[in-house]
Amino acid sequence: MKQTLLLLPGDGIGPEVTAAAQRICQLVAPDVAIEEDLVGGASIDKHGVPLTGAALDRAKSVDAILLGAVGGPKWADVARDKRPEAGLLGLRKGLDVFANLRPAYCFGALVDASSLKRDRVEGLDIMIVRELTSGVYFGEPRGIETDANGVRRGFDMSVYTAPEVERVTRVALEIARGRAGRVCSVDKANVMESGQFWRQEVTTVHKTHGGGVELSHMLADACAMELVRAPKQFDVILADNLFGDLLSDAAAMLTGSIGMLPSASLGTEGTPGLFEPVHGSAPDIAGQGIANPCAAILSLEMALRWSLARPDSADRIMAAVGRALEAGARTRDLGGDLSTTAMTDAIIDCL
Amino acid sequence: MKQTLLLLPGDGIGPEVTAAAQRICQLVAPDVAIEEDLVGGASIDKHGVPLTGAALDRAKSVDAILLGAVGGPKWADVARDKRPEAGLLGLRKGLDVFANLRPAYCFGALVDASSLKRDRVEGLDIMIVRELTSGVYFGEPRGIETDANGVRRGFDMSVYTAPEVERVTRVALEIARGRAGRVCSVDKANVMESGQFWRQEVTTVHKTHGGGVELSHMLADACAMELVRAPKQFDVILADNLFGDLLSDAAAMLTGSIGMLPSASLGTEGTPGLFEPVHGSAPDIAGQGIANPCAAILSLEMALRWSLARPDSADRIMAAVGRALEAGARTRDLGGDLSTTAMTDAIIDCL
Ligand SMILES: CC(C)[C@H](C(=O)O)[C@@H](O)C(=O)O
Ligand SMILES: CC(C)[C@H](C(=O)O)[C@@H](O)C(=O)O
Repeated sequence: MKQTLLLLPGDGIGPEVTAAAQRICQLVAPDVAIEEDLVGGASIDKHGVPLTGAALDRAKSVDAILLGAVGGPKWADVARDKRPEAGLLGLRKGLDVFANLRPAYCFGALVDASSLKRDRVEGLDIMIVRELTSGVYFGEPRGIETDANGVRRGFDMSVYTAPEVERVTRVALEIARGRAGRVCSVDKANVMESGQFWRQEVTTVHKTHGGGVELSHMLADACAMELVRAPKQFDVILADNLFGDLLSDAAAMLTGSIGMLPSASLGTEGTPGLFEPVHGSAPDIAGQGIANPCAAILSLEMALRWSLARPDSADRIMAAVGRALEAGARTRDLGGDLSTTAMTDAIIDCL
Repeated sequence: MKQTLLLLPGDGIGPEVTAAAQRICQLVAPDVAIEEDLVGGASIDKHGVPLTGAALDRAKSVDAILLGAVGGPKWADVARDKRPEAGLLGLRKGLDVFANLRPAYCFGALVDASSLKRDRVEGLDIMIVRELTSGVYFGEPRGIETDANGVRRGFDMSVYTAPEVERVTRVALEIARGRAGRVCSVDKANVMESGQFWRQEVTTVHKTHGGGVELSHMLADACAMELVRAPKQFDVILADNLFGDLLSDAAAMLTGSIGMLPSASLGTEGTPGLFEPVHGSAPDIAGQGIANPCAAILSLEMALRWSLARPDSADRIMAAVGRALEAGARTRDLGGDLSTTAMTDAIIDCL
């Protein structure tokens, strides 16, 4: 049966980088049908909401979704649920893609672009598995209110249930099995009840499903520090939605440029995965044609591998990006001067 | 009137490093009376609780408190409120020290100990102001329970009131005024209501009390990344309890060793400040006499400056630590082989 990839270019540099990924897709997997729809600010401008029910239904019906990025100053001053980010959160929740995979690896050719010394990042290969559909991002109650004494307060509930922790832990264990076999689970069990609960549940799930995988626990603050001190100690890092958000951004930066890093968000078997660059919509450089297309192209690579069952096409992309970098191809964020299109051409030349 | 410094050595390497700081205190401020009491595991072993009411009362009655560190594997498997960390949290809350100051600066002699390249950290000088007595650390409700459908869940409330945000923001603004005059406030306003509230309140307080200070806002995940990419862009970082915890640990590591970094926790004018190393009790090296005493000694330096109004004594310590490092004095965490005592001797020689 024909496979379909839905493009959701979104805002800012989103359309520029997804266009680059689309070109690559047409070359390595020409039989995949490509559709397109709106999300984020682009959807607000057209439909008044950051994600329409029709767009979500369409996303649910395809095989994989490649999203560019959402957000920008144009839509910043409105209520939170009317903002572009709400479209992204609605998509994640609607697709129930609970496991967000964020690799942090350093292409050999880019070791010197990192802020860290060479020995700290050479050969770095971390996979962060972040829970994506629960925690403080979606917990209830939440709000801003004035209490009986006239005091204003803002609040959010940070909450995890056992099934939520279990399913993402199983993904992390499964992934570790195909790698170095080590999962480091992150929490603040020393101060948060949900952290203590997270640690207990992960430990329990590991007992039943952790065959062959070594499990350790680390406090989130210590993990933030260890990612800077000695990042190569990590294989798979398992974290909740909020800690995963911060730690994956820090880890991404270890590799030189956030412009290089893809992510995959996976649901249960047989449902479409959502693939997106770790970077944002970068309003400061949008429209200039200078964005690094690698994160989007590598997100396509993850789509081909994780949702479309085309590991060979994925391998081709991975190798081509590596070779283009070896040959010196660099966008501005990497210290070069190639445009988005020229960088994409360089990768295509190496396919 | 005679000033009193209360030592709370705590657990692990806590007693070793506070003993070093005590020696320095007797030299630079011999007229300060020094008392001692228990907190953390040490208090659990003696009194069955991590902080007695008597110890807290005593802490409230002195001029400043120097704490070593709390915690260790011995007390890990008990309920959260019976653990050493509860003593520390109880002390912070009981003293109402809402503003936690965590400097991240890199001694010239230690630039090469950092994981980051020299140009990224040379001259680094950040002050993180972390809210310390509210947020998800203390929010209610919190707990672990089984709901009506038999599903287990763990939850914590992340909450801030306007007065809580206001007072810590004013401290950050005041501190920035004595520095480069820039405050970067951190939140997740794009996904958390308490984050949106935090941003609104900080903005409001800045309007009234921010004369001469430039305020910017950054998302917490972006901040984690920017601390690795280009840390020198920051002057003062203002963050809530949880983000401040992670970001200050990451920032601490930029400077080479967490063994170097002190912190000050301040309440309202006229109440005693709590001073403690950013590092923990380090059970792995406790009892070996090899811990780096610098963080405790520099915490004493902050006590002399912020609570005891002795800037000259503080300056003497700062200069002596710098000179000892220039002269090559290094504990193990810094790549040397000096014991805690020998490192302290080296600093004393430079006083
Ligand atoms: C845009 C924002 C809502 C999002 C998040 O916080 O999850 C982003 O930071 C990410 O990590 O994908
Ligand atoms: C020990 C722990 C409770 C504490 C915290 O989380 O605040 C520590 O990490 C710190 O930063 O002082």
